Amino acid sequence: MNYRVAIAGATGAVGQEIIRLLDLRKFPVEKLSLFGSSRSAGKKLSTGYGEIEVEEFSEDKLDRLDYIFFATSGEHSKIYAPIAAAKGAIVIDNSSAFRLNDSVPLVVPEVNSAALKSHQGIIANPNCSTIQMVIALNPIHKISRLKRIVVSTYQAVSGAGQAAISELNTQTSDILSGNSPTIKNFTKQIAFNVIPHIDVFQDNGYTKEEMKMVDETLKILGDSKIRIAANCVRVPVIRAHSEAINIETEGYVGVDKAREVLNKSTGITVIDEHVDGGYPTPAEVSERMDTYVGRIREDISCDNGLALWVVADQLWKGAALNAIQIAECLIEQNQNG
Amino acid sequence: MNYRVAIAGATGAVGQEIIRLLDLRKFPVEKLSLFGSSRSAGKKLSTGYGEIEVEEFSEDKLDRLDYIFFATSGEHSKIYAPIAAAKGAIVIDNSSAFRLNDSVPLVVPEVNSAALKSHQGIIANPNCSTIQMVIALNPIHKISRLKRIVVSTYQAVSGAGQAAISELNTQTSDILSGNSPTIKNFTKQIAFNVIPHIDVFQDNGYTKEEMKMVDETLKILGDSKIRIAANCVRVPVIRAHSEAINIETEGYVGVDKAREVLNKSTGITVIDEHVDGGYPTPAEVSERMDTYVGRIREDISCDNGLALWVVADQLWKGAALNAIQIAECLIEQNQNG
Repeated sequence: MNYRVAIAGATGAVGQEIIRLLDLRKFPVEKLSLFGSSRSAGKKLSTGYGEIEVEEFSEDKLDRLDYIFFATSGEHSKIYAPIAAAKGAIVIDNSSAFRLNDSVPLVVPEVNSAALKSHQGIIANPNCSTIQMVIALNPIHKISRLKRIVVSTYQAVSGAGQAAISELNTQTSDILSGNSPTIKNFTKQIAFNVIPHIDVFQDNGYTKEEMKMVDETLKILGDSKIRIAANCVRVPVIRAHSEAINIETEGYVGVDKAREVLNKSTGITVIDEHVDGGYPTPAEVSERMDTYVGRIREDISCDNGLALWVVADQLWKGAALNAIQIAECLIEQNQNG
Repeated sequence: MNYRVAIAGATGAVGQEIIRLLDLRKFPVEKLSLFGSSRSAGKKLSTGYGEIEVEEFSEDKLDRLDYIFFATSGEHSKIYAPIAAAKGAIVIDNSSAFRLNDSVPLVVPEVNSAALKSHQGIIANPNCSTIQMVIALNPIHKISRLKRIVVSTYQAVSGAGQAAISELNTQTSDILSGNSPTIKNFTKQIAFNVIPHIDVFQDNGYTKEEMKMVDETLKILGDSKIRIAANCVRVPVIRAHSEAINIETEGYVGVDKAREVLNKSTGITVIDEHVDGGYPTPAEVSERMDTYVGRIREDISCDNGLALWVVADQLWKGAALNAIQIAECLIEQNQNG
């Protein structure tokens, strides 16, 4: 069986990757519709299903769809995702609009695909930084419950969209030729710099990105007792987020056991040799589907602790790929019962 | 009174900054001697004390010196620092050779200048990443003892020397013009990438840089019970290291009290507003003498915890400046009795 699929926000950074990955993963598409803003309408995009013209998004185009991927703003999703669902489509939403809504499953298929069974038409795709963290930690959590997570991120600029990538490139050229960089999308120069600020500040001094990593992880792992603190930092990397993660578990796990379960887990590639280059870095992990884990060692600052280095392509596993895997998972669950 | 001062390794990244800072801080120099390798010998460097020719380093040139700064390799320091000290000079050594030696003080003047009193001719300058961390944490440690530190670093390439800076620039240009980057000084591409590996791997899976942050911090703070875990990561920043630090203290400190003591501490500038740009970043902190602290907030993953973002120019406060401040401190202690 093939499906009528649509993408809202088809010309954005994530929308573009959804188009590529539907084809790469041979998603059973009967018809692909691409929706965008009035500015994008009329553009022709080459896809695995031929050249397709972008249509201006409107409510009346949401009829007769099986799956629609929303890769638009939270405000847009909040209004139109329920409408699309009411018209019978299954909505997979990349925004943060529904992630913490109790009646909306928040899913990373490798971790909590069972949550999909209770969906009511909308499924939320988690934040990019959260996805790769829970993929790496869930296999360990299953051996011994996570008590505490401290994570510091090294997040690529493409998480802030295509304009952010251009800004990094332009600023970098400007600085190399001795000119002052122009700042538009970031709060400070991002070329040859790092910025400890992603998304807006919350009352507790954390940024929204940092609190997403907390709240979404608790929901996905289904365990509200885990205590989590995040430091989210933008770095001048084009693509793929990295995370230095320190965890404390209830019982002792140890490096060997952790490496063994990570090695066996779906969606994870372990690169962990104590030699030059024996670890993943974002430049190599761009356009890879797996989450890469390295630098697995005891956290020597606590008794049952581990430290890990986790890298994944945040546009793929952190967004477009995870969204498509959610749809694949639903199809499989329907076929099985 | 003025002093006969020498710099071993005068043409290196740190040596160059010592030359600049002696002048900027009006260090009481009677005569400045610059030593280098045979390759550098004969080069004339402009200094605050006129143009000075670099002499090839040799033992017989170590007579009649008051202070000598070693900005050379650990192997070089290990051999020649004791010889210089035996000849009556006070050696301030930037290498790791003597840092953990019980008879050698390891000093950050703002933190443990009292340790200088027991010196036997050699004083060790700590690792750059350690210096800025202990400066930021010591004022809090004095309110309530530190129990645990988890730190993730964002370290600039200039920590790896001048060749590393050129490599970042060259790789960046190559990538911007569509060519493959050439890798020499790092284990992987550093332009538009991050590398979780600084200095050599140890048996416990940590790198030497990470273990320096542990061992040196315990010695400087004089408290062997603090438990510390570090994740040291190289980022494509030219200059100034950043650190995301999570600490747990014995008692409750709180954000307001922490901000208050940090604001009052010598050598620290607090930039901590919960608005766009209200935090320090390395591009702004290059060639600044202070250690900059921002993003001060409760560590919500433990009961008596704080999270901080700490940035400092690792060539200045992390190396050359701290070394000169050690000498300044010795002069002041001698004058006072």
